[in-house]
Amino acid sequence: MRIDGALLEPRLDELYAIGAQPEGGAYRPLYGPAWAAAVDLVQKWMKDAGLETRRDAVGNLWGRAEGAGKAIVTGSHIDTVRHGGRLDGALGIVAGLTAVQALLKDKGKPRRPLEVVAICEEEGSRFATNFWGSRAITGAIDTVDAEIAAAMRECGLDPTKIATAARDDIDTFVELHIEQGSVLESARTPLAVVSAIVGTAQLEVTVIGRPDHAGTTPMDLRLDALAGAAAMVQAVESIAKSLGKPAVATVGKLAALPDQINVVPGKVIFTVDLRHSDLGGRRALEERIRSLCATISQERRLGLAIRTLQEKPPVAMHPDLRALLARAAKECGVKATEMVSGAGHDAQILAARCKVGMLFVPSVGGRSHCPEESTNPEHLRLGTEVLARSLELLAY
Amino acid sequence: MRIDGALLEPRLDELYAIGAQPEGGAYRPLYGPAWAAAVDLVQKWMKDAGLETRRDAVGNLWGRAEGAGKAIVTGSHIDTVRHGGRLDGALGIVAGLTAVQALLKDKGKPRRPLEVVAICEEEGSRFATNFWGSRAITGAIDTVDAEIAAAMRECGLDPTKIATAARDDIDTFVELHIEQGSVLESARTPLAVVSAIVGTAQLEVTVIGRPDHAGTTPMDLRLDALAGAAAMVQAVESIAKSLGKPAVATVGKLAALPDQINVVPGKVIFTVDLRHSDLGGRRALEERIRSLCATISQERRLGLAIRTLQEKPPVAMHPDLRALLARAAKECGVKATEMVSGAGHDAQILAARCKVGMLFVPSVGGRSHCPEESTNPEHLRLGTEVLARSLELLAY
Repeated sequence: MRIDGALLEPRLDELYAIGAQPEGGAYRPLYGPAWAAAVDLVQKWMKDAGLETRRDAVGNLWGRAEGAGKAIVTGSHIDTVRHGGRLDGALGIVAGLTAVQALLKDKGKPRRPLEVVAICEEEGSRFATNFWGSRAITGAIDTVDAEIAAAMRECGLDPTKIATAARDDIDTFVELHIEQGSVLESARTPLAVVSAIVGTAQLEVTVIGRPDHAGTTPMDLRLDALAGAAAMVQAVESIAKSLGKPAVATVGKLAALPDQINVVPGKVIFTVDLRHSDLGGRRALEERIRSLCATISQERRLGLAIRTLQEKPPVAMHPDLRALLARAAKECGVKATEMVSGAGHDAQILAARCKVGMLFVPSVGGRSHCPEESTNPEHLRLGTEVLARSLELLAY
Repeated sequence: MRIDGALLEPRLDELYAIGAQPEGGAYRPLYGPAWAAAVDLVQKWMKDAGLETRRDAVGNLWGRAEGAGKAIVTGSHIDTVRHGGRLDGALGIVAGLTAVQALLKDKGKPRRPLEVVAICEEEGSRFATNFWGSRAITGAIDTVDAEIAAAMRECGLDPTKIATAARDDIDTFVELHIEQGSVLESARTPLAVVSAIVGTAQLEVTVIGRPDHAGTTPMDLRLDALAGAAAMVQAVESIAKSLGKPAVATVGKLAALPDQINVVPGKVIFTVDLRHSDLGGRRALEERIRSLCATISQERRLGLAIRTLQEKPPVAMHPDLRALLARAAKECGVKATEMVSGAGHDAQILAARCKVGMLFVPSVGGRSHCPEESTNPEHLRLGTEVLARSLELLAY
């Protein structure tokens, strides 16, 4: 079954126009007017496709074609970051809807319930609520912040009803997403089956030296916190490289104090974001970084404190689903590669309640979370076609 | 001629109390009330010592014992940094006055004019006016900022008369100062004759990479500006160490952008402060740093821009005066070492008009520009005694 690319692009454009910002990009923060307008638009599309729609207690929008047993679900999140691009989240909704619409037209009523979901929130760019929609679906939200509760009420949602959004009748969740990196583009590969979503640990490292006069303190009498931190930044990079893919480690923030041109830095605070698809790998990465930082601080007689800011385990995609997605790709004439997702996705949350799988299409230049975010239209079409074939294999 | 240490300490205490700050330390910014009170106090001490006093057009205070020919001058600056210590500047004035007072009492009228000066400003901690007093003495001030002119008028000084502060009748300027580092303390040496004041260059280095998602960008596809800058910070330290004393190089400020925990830094700006007593050495240090930064940026395919923020040549102390100060120390039973001053001093400005020399006494723990600034009283006494013997050799 071929997907017509001409069906995808206008819908992506229409969605991208909602919440367009004067400086470029779109912003559709959870429960805001742009967000509500986008949900309305997708609901209209769902109805046009012949799906029965409903909104759950947190504002996730569901469109369903009835069938027997547990549901096969596809979709993605409808919110965006500030100055977000045209595809992150939007693609999974538009492609899912286009695939289901084509299936209903070509193949008729599915054997199993087949659903498209527009998940209300994933990005955490209005409230500190990452994965708000998928956490509601898995029944993982225990408390609601007063500010969020107020925003929900403004949208006509009742925050005391959040528990009713939980579902245990989903068999499988499949999502098409942009890669948001440049692995596929570099390898000239049009499609990937995701094997796992990385586990992340974020550390804060504090290095204590002694502030000294930059002119009167000879090199051998210094306790330079920044020179020590620089050695640690180098070590973080070397360790991630030497462990090999998919290990990544990043020092994204660094502050040197007292931050004066003629004073040897007495204190440095920096962050380390480290990720691996395998919990053992992630722990090995962290262990080696902690150990080398300790060695460097001892060699240089510097103080060292490392605290964990955040920790998330890696999530493997379901093996049956990985095989099915690879088969669907092959049947569509595409040789899909397997890759680890370095970014987080709703699938890692939904994995607690159902089988999850993901497809990635390439991001031009690896750009994402910015107005330049784009994917070759043929790759979009191809990804949607493989998604449709996968849904056919699952639901028909 | 022995100096009674009991004469030094009460005067240092009295001066330190002027401009005392509730959080500790003293602050006597140029032309402020604390500054004016300190000048009044020193003028009273000068008169008590039998010196003829006058204030020049910028507020430098001079106390003179008449003699024939060009003058022999000692002293230091009376202003302080914020939360300044008890000795920086103050010691040179109090020790100079105490030495001259003792000479006049013991040896009578000098052969040559003998003067003590309280230089109005050296620190630049109220206006961007470093070396304001000594620049006026050397006739090096061409223009006066409106804000400074207003502050001068409030003190009864006429900014149109600044040129009259210039002197060409000084033969020699000798200053006793604290080291402000820990070289002497580490070497357990009570006194140093300064051989030169370092030349300084301050650079701003900009490293351009590409901001990327910390999760979706494999290590080998990154252009990490901070990892590159860390290698450069390491190189700056290594080069200064390998060139050996008195080369020093310091990265004091560093900013990584966009400064987000989960984004690979796309841009880093850092400063390099580099110093050497010899212009060739200073240039070699800078050349090697520039060259290694270029190599690192090329290896890592990063953009690099280096601009010079400030440049000051090194100033050698007069060789005759170095020999005389060493001789005076020996006659006082002290084995003085020679060392390079890593910090700037009025002597480097006055060198344009007269022979200059400096003596350093140790700083406890190398601390300076802070309330903890202190020197063993016996070292203060000894430094003053050697200063007195030097002035005797020069003026009698």
